[in-house]
Amino acid sequence: MMKGQNMDIFEAIANRHSYRGEFQDKPVLRKDLEKIVQAGIDAPSGCNAQTTSFVVVDDPQLIAKMAAIFGDRPVCTTARAIIVCLADSTPAYGTTSFDREDCAAAVENMLLAITALGYATVWYQGYVQQNGNGRKIAELLGVSDLLRVEVVLPIGVPLTNELPRPKKSLIDRVSFNCFGR
Amino acid sequence: MMKGQNMDIFEAIANRHSYRGEFQDKPVLRKDLEKIVQAGIDAPSGCNAQTTSFVVVDDPQLIAKMAAIFGDRPVCTTARAIIVCLADSTPAYGTTSFDREDCAAAVENMLLAITALGYATVWYQGYVQQNGNGRKIAELLGVSDLLRVEVVLPIGVPLTNELPRPKKSLIDRVSFNCFGR
Repeated sequence: MMKGQNMDIFEAIANRHSYRGEFQDKPVLRKDLEKIVQAGIDAPSGCNAQTTSFVVVDDPQLIAKMAAIFGDRPVCTTARAIIVCLADSTPAYGTTSFDREDCAAAVENMLLAITALGYATVWYQGYVQQNGNGRKIAELLGVSDLLRVEVVLPIGVPLTNELPRPKKSLIDRVSFNCFGR
Repeated sequence: MMKGQNMDIFEAIANRHSYRGEFQDKPVLRKDLEKIVQAGIDAPSGCNAQTTSFVVVDDPQLIAKMAAIFGDRPVCTTARAIIVCLADSTPAYGTTSFDREDCAAAVENMLLAITALGYATVWYQGYVQQNGNGRKIAELLGVSDLLRVEVVLPIGVPLTNELPRPKKSLIDRVSFNCFGR
C-alpha cells in the first residue's frame, strides 16, 4: 500500500481548489509527479477499460510552448510541470464509451494528490476544446490520432493563498428519499 | 475544516475498488451519508456550475424497489443506502456542458469517502442507461424532468474482502515530455 503525506482524505477533499495564480520558482519533483499520475491510474473506469493515459511535461521549453497555446496565462507560464490527460473513446460497454467519466475520475484523484503534496493546479478542459488547442498540444507532443487531448493540469507550488470558491450548501443539493424535499 | 477518519488520501485512493458482493446487515449512518455527499459537493465543476445534485435513499422499501429495477442483484438488495446522482446538462461554458465530468468528479470524491468510512460501493452508470432504468428511478423518486439520473451508488458494509482489479502499470499509461516514450 502506497503511503502519502498523512493528509486525511476529507481534509484533501475540503482543501482542493482551482488555482489560477502564479507559481513559486520551486520544482515539482519527479517522485511527486509519479505519485500524482499513480493516483490517476488508480481511479476507476467503466468496465475497467482504463481509457485515460498521461503525458507528463516537465521540460521548460515544452512548458513554454504549451503556455503560449493557452495565451501565456501565469498559471501556465510559471508551471513547473503540466500533466496532459489523453482519452480513448473506444466503446467499453456495447456502443457506450465512458471516456469522459474515466478521465474526470482520474483527474479528481490527481487533484487530491496534488493538494496533499503541497502543490496546486487548475482543471483546464474548456480551454483545451477552444481554438483547436487540444490538437495543437497533440501535435507538440506527438500524440496518436487515436487519442484526444482532454484535460491539462498546470502544476506548481502556489505563490498566493487562494481559497476554495463558495459552493451551494448541502440543503440545496441533497434530499433524502424523495427528490427536492 | 472537516475532519475524517484519519485515512490518508493515498491509502484511500489505493484501497478504493468496486464492490459487487452482498453487504452485511449493518446500517449506513445518516451522519456518514452526510459526510459522503458533502465530499461530492466539494468536488470541482466546470465554471463552478455545480450541476450535480443528489437523492440519498435509505428507506428500505425504496431500496427494494430500486433493487428490482436493477434485476435484484445482491449489491442492491442488501444495500443499506443508495445515493442517486442527478445531472443538469444546462451549458456552463458557451454551448458546452460539463455535466458528465462534474458528476464523475463528485462520484470519485464520494467513492473515496465511502472507502475511508469503512463502507463499499460500485459505480452504476451503464446499468442506469440500460432499459430506461434511469427514467424508472426518476419516476420512483419524483425527479424533475430537467435533470437526468446519471449514477447510482449502492452502499453498505462489505461482507467479503474483494480486491481492487488489476490495473495497467505506470509504464503502460504514462510517458514524460513526449507521447509514448
